[in-house]
Amino acid sequence: MASISIPSATEDAENIRKAVQGWGTDEKALIEILGHRTAAQRAEIAVAYEGLYNESLLDRLHSELSGDFRSAMMLWTADPAARDAKLAHKAMKKNGERYVWVLIEVACASTPDHLVAVRKAYREAYSASLEEDVAACPLYKDPLLKQFLVRLVSSYRYSGELVDDELARAEVAELHDAVVARKQPLHGDVVRIVSSRSKPQLKATFERYRQDHGKAIDEVLEEERRSDQLAAVLKTAVWCLTSPEKHFAEVIRSSIVGLGTDEESLTRAIVSRAEIDMKKVKEEYKARYHKTVTSDVNSDTSGYYNGILLTLVGPE
Amino acid sequence: MASISIPSATEDAENIRKAVQGWGTDEKALIEILGHRTAAQRAEIAVAYEGLYNESLLDRLHSELSGDFRSAMMLWTADPAARDAKLAHKAMKKNGERYVWVLIEVACASTPDHLVAVRKAYREAYSASLEEDVAACPLYKDPLLKQFLVRLVSSYRYSGELVDDELARAEVAELHDAVVARKQPLHGDVVRIVSSRSKPQLKATFERYRQDHGKAIDEVLEEERRSDQLAAVLKTAVWCLTSPEKHFAEVIRSSIVGLGTDEESLTRAIVSRAEIDMKKVKEEYKARYHKTVTSDVNSDTSGYYNGILLTLVGPE
Repeated sequence: MASISIPSATEDAENIRKAVQGWGTDEKALIEILGHRTAAQRAEIAVAYEGLYNESLLDRLHSELSGDFRSAMMLWTADPAARDAKLAHKAMKKNGERYVWVLIEVACASTPDHLVAVRKAYREAYSASLEEDVAACPLYKDPLLKQFLVRLVSSYRYSGELVDDELARAEVAELHDAVVARKQPLHGDVVRIVSSRSKPQLKATFERYRQDHGKAIDEVLEEERRSDQLAAVLKTAVWCLTSPEKHFAEVIRSSIVGLGTDEESLTRAIVSRAEIDMKKVKEEYKARYHKTVTSDVNSDTSGYYNGILLTLVGPE
Repeated sequence: MASISIPSATEDAENIRKAVQGWGTDEKALIEILGHRTAAQRAEIAVAYEGLYNESLLDRLHSELSGDFRSAMMLWTADPAARDAKLAHKAMKKNGERYVWVLIEVACASTPDHLVAVRKAYREAYSASLEEDVAACPLYKDPLLKQFLVRLVSSYRYSGELVDDELARAEVAELHDAVVARKQPLHGDVVRIVSSRSKPQLKATFERYRQDHGKAIDEVLEEERRSDQLAAVLKTAVWCLTSPEKHFAEVIRSSIVGLGTDEESLTRAIVSRAEIDMKKVKEEYKARYHKTVTSDVNSDTSGYYNGILLTLVGPE
């Protein structure tokens, strides 16, 4: 394929205008334009659009589109920090493990600086802080679970590469005591370690854990999850922090298998990883489920909604 | 006094260079220049100085000055976020209530955006996050105290003016249940409320508490502090959040009364409040102790150290 030059934000805005004006909507054109622009480009297009036509691009998409396609296009077009703030806000209104996942993804699966941007966007959108709403949320009844979630969304982890091997060694012992030997305080140190250490430090600690104990910490937590809700949440955090592609492959798969499709989760996973690690998610998916993301998306979705998802998933 | 124009950062840097070059040091000139510049101006001077002389201004002050005067000049010349990161880092190495104060001041007595800047500076200086070090600090033995400190330093409170009166009403009841009626979980809700709500919201809640129960929450906590370390810490946080001048008047006073002077605390309080609320601190001091900050500083300090402190305190 010959490389093509990307049009200016103004040209894109003008073409989007053409696609939404008059009779009907040219959904294909919207997918073609917005689906192939980076977050920075989409932000410029939104500014150009508002400058030219004196209306918000997101508002126009909202009034012009509908259903799952609209949700996907709006989530994709929104600023990523504002999008994650919105996802977190919505997730706190619903009960169930898959909504707790959203908070963990927002807190753990992007960079520490992104999380600060999300918290800033959250304060602007909801006149409250993210951690304030998590702490006051009546859905999280277990005090340790709540404490863990508050600390995850409040963290601003060190993001350098420096790893302390002595510390990794000491914290392997603390993890083992807390999760397997079940010494008191149950999970207290796990919560502290997982919610505060840097990602490279956690990778070093978990790698050493696997070497010392012959089993990965996520497998140990996986075995505990039937009897222990916090173990399940801890495992999700471990994945989002050190191998988010595993978590998002699972989100996509579980949104597709079973009765009906969970479009909300499917959209969220694909939109939020499209610019981060979609290639890894697709590889992980193929290795684990012996299917491709594309074939599963095709089997469960159709129309323009299918179109934007496949555009964001990209070639297998 | 005729208004005088402030020299350019380059002129200031040149004059500082004259003051530190050759035989001896012109301390008076350093106080005269740096003691009368805002944080933004001091930052520009430091950049200009390094550009002109290829050495860090802070390093030069360190090698040129000594004792309490040096500490005060260096803390004052440093970037406020880096200074607070350093103060917090040092405070975690020492045992005692007055060191816990430092963490609470850093977390609560400035703006939420300043705290984010402090956390950023902390990560750069110490290759760790502030909350990570608080959570792992062996000095904070009470788990609830530790949790409270972690949540204070991790917060990014909403900083708008919006207040929810219904919420204030509900949380007055929760505060009263937790502190006075001592229902379980002891202090749990107090920790949540104080560590997450916005300052205007907390002011509304505490004002309503005073109206409903005929006593201010800080007085109630003050009475509990003899039997309960967490109550003392909570009271300090309440003051730093809603009337920091009360806390800093107490820090200055307690650094002066008693055996010897606690120069570290005295310097910290004056340097960190000089550009924020020194006028209120002086008024509070006069009202509470029937002395002025100036007269107490004069009775306990001398020389150039006294000179920089009085410059920062300003006229009574």
